[in-house]
Amino acid sequence: MTTHKRLAWIAVDWGSSNLRVWTMSDADEVLAHRGTERGMLGLTSTQYEAALLDVVGDWLMSDGQVDVIVCGMAGARQGWREAPYLAVPARLEALAEGAVAPPVQDPRLRVRLLPGLCQRYDETGREFDVMRGEETQLAGLVAHEPEFTGRVCLPGTHAKWARLVTGELQDFQTFMTGELYRLLAHQSVLSHSLREDDLADTACREAFVTAVRDVSIKPARVTQWLFGIRAGDLLDERLPAGEVRGACLAARLSGLMIGLELAGALDGVDENERVCLIGAKSLCHRYALALETLGHPSRVIDSERAVLAGLALARGTLNRN
Amino acid sequence: MTTHKRLAWIAVDWGSSNLRVWTMSDADEVLAHRGTERGMLGLTSTQYEAALLDVVGDWLMSDGQVDVIVCGMAGARQGWREAPYLAVPARLEALAEGAVAPPVQDPRLRVRLLPGLCQRYDETGREFDVMRGEETQLAGLVAHEPEFTGRVCLPGTHAKWARLVTGELQDFQTFMTGELYRLLAHQSVLSHSLREDDLADTACREAFVTAVRDVSIKPARVTQWLFGIRAGDLLDERLPAGEVRGACLAARLSGLMIGLELAGALDGVDENERVCLIGAKSLCHRYALALETLGHPSRVIDSERAVLAGLALARGTLNRN
Repeated sequence: MTTHKRLAWIAVDWGSSNLRVWTMSDADEVLAHRGTERGMLGLTSTQYEAALLDVVGDWLMSDGQVDVIVCGMAGARQGWREAPYLAVPARLEALAEGAVAPPVQDPRLRVRLLPGLCQRYDETGREFDVMRGEETQLAGLVAHEPEFTGRVCLPGTHAKWARLVTGELQDFQTFMTGELYRLLAHQSVLSHSLREDDLADTACREAFVTAVRDVSIKPARVTQWLFGIRAGDLLDERLPAGEVRGACLAARLSGLMIGLELAGALDGVDENERVCLIGAKSLCHRYALALETLGHPSRVIDSERAVLAGLALARGTLNRN
Repeated sequence: MTTHKRLAWIAVDWGSSNLRVWTMSDADEVLAHRGTERGMLGLTSTQYEAALLDVVGDWLMSDGQVDVIVCGMAGARQGWREAPYLAVPARLEALAEGAVAPPVQDPRLRVRLLPGLCQRYDETGREFDVMRGEETQLAGLVAHEPEFTGRVCLPGTHAKWARLVTGELQDFQTFMTGELYRLLAHQSVLSHSLREDDLADTACREAFVTAVRDVSIKPARVTQWLFGIRAGDLLDERLPAGEVRGACLAARLSGLMIGLELAGALDGVDENERVCLIGAKSLCHRYALALETLGHPSRVIDSERAVLAGLALARGTLNRN
């Protein structure tokens, strides 16, 4: 393969459920990408090297050594080796300073695990919180925009909201939005009423926007509105029939969960303040619609682009030192 | 058995997961009680009679006919036979008017299924909602206190809040508190941090009360505080060590969920208004502590006493007509 000639380093995002790997050129261009479901939750510390070689082995040259820069849960205490949390406030260019090298047999691999961030309770309003993986995406944002000031939202299973001032992470909060959505959609009484939604459909979009607005006005009623999805399915003749009925109800559930997060995260934030979204495109567009509903403009940065920029920034720092 | 001589009727509360049966005297005293886990969710319509006979068969006389008064999900569309919902506002003494008789082979059984209640959206603030089983407990309250006016809370998987005016049910709301608590405690990332709590323990009680207060002030932050349970377990040195740590975190989860419900249900309600709780003793005492934290006195009525009084009231009406 011709790409072998240009392989300069390997970028790895190793989360709880997934392993994503990119081969990179010296100019930090992506040469190839692979993913597997061999996430950190299924591995013991001695299995990481073999799991990585399964994915990247045929990309490696027989001689020479390649940098492998890893972010995510592989650096957790229960992971490959612990890369202890750095505390906030934190400069995101400095993530590499907390990197650790796990034990590796294969001489072709020079692996470094990047640390996550932790936040301790203090009198300024910070609450206990942790992240592992998202800090590298934030570093990617700062790599492109060193003076970035503003709020960043990273939607997902455990959505993160970070406040940056001239490139420094001041504080952050985690919301269990994605996990809660999945539990409710698949394992609660609501599961019988739901189909996959599609916000391109006008009725779904309207159901989503209405839910965002409802919950932002009366967040304390959220669990009442959750049961209302079931009651509406039983009683509400205004709902469309057929597949789109379940899709509209799923859109309402999504709107309730995202709207609740936004009501919490934007409490005390000026209306009109722009939010930077980092994540998968379709999820970010859903958040952008919810933000717009509440009067906030937004911009979207693709999470793959952000994590690669963050890993490249860390590699640069490691190789300079 | 001597009790056979006094058996006048059989009271049945047939829910989604459980079947509870009481033999009753003509003076509506309990002679005996049995329960099984043969709830409505595990039965098809033709299996109810046999399931009931398994439990009550040896109580029946060889001749004569006995009233069996049933409330709960056995009267749902997917149950033994549908007892269609009555609409609110509704007088609770009138539940028997919606009773239906399911098909029964055994000549010794005269079975009536009581209806549930439904609420349709209207301009006065009513939202779509349904109940099946709790209406009979409310009827039991009204049987003892025909002029009852006030708010009643029935805690549980789907907690109900009802507003009664001189014995008439005006409107009600359902909150998914119990189901949400169970999903989070057993199937979310939080499950690793929790043990069974005990509000008799001072630290647990304090964690519960603090959570109720936190979420009542800032309900929109609830999913942030949910993840904060996990982050606190990882980082908070102020938490006690050992078993009691997980118990305190479970108490905080319980306080967040119950406090969120209370913040929604008591929105716009005068502070100091007394709430009537109907349910299992330990759960009602938990709610009473949460209510007290928010400035509301409460009283507790045992749910078994309430449901039996409601079923007895319905039997009286049916036999008069």
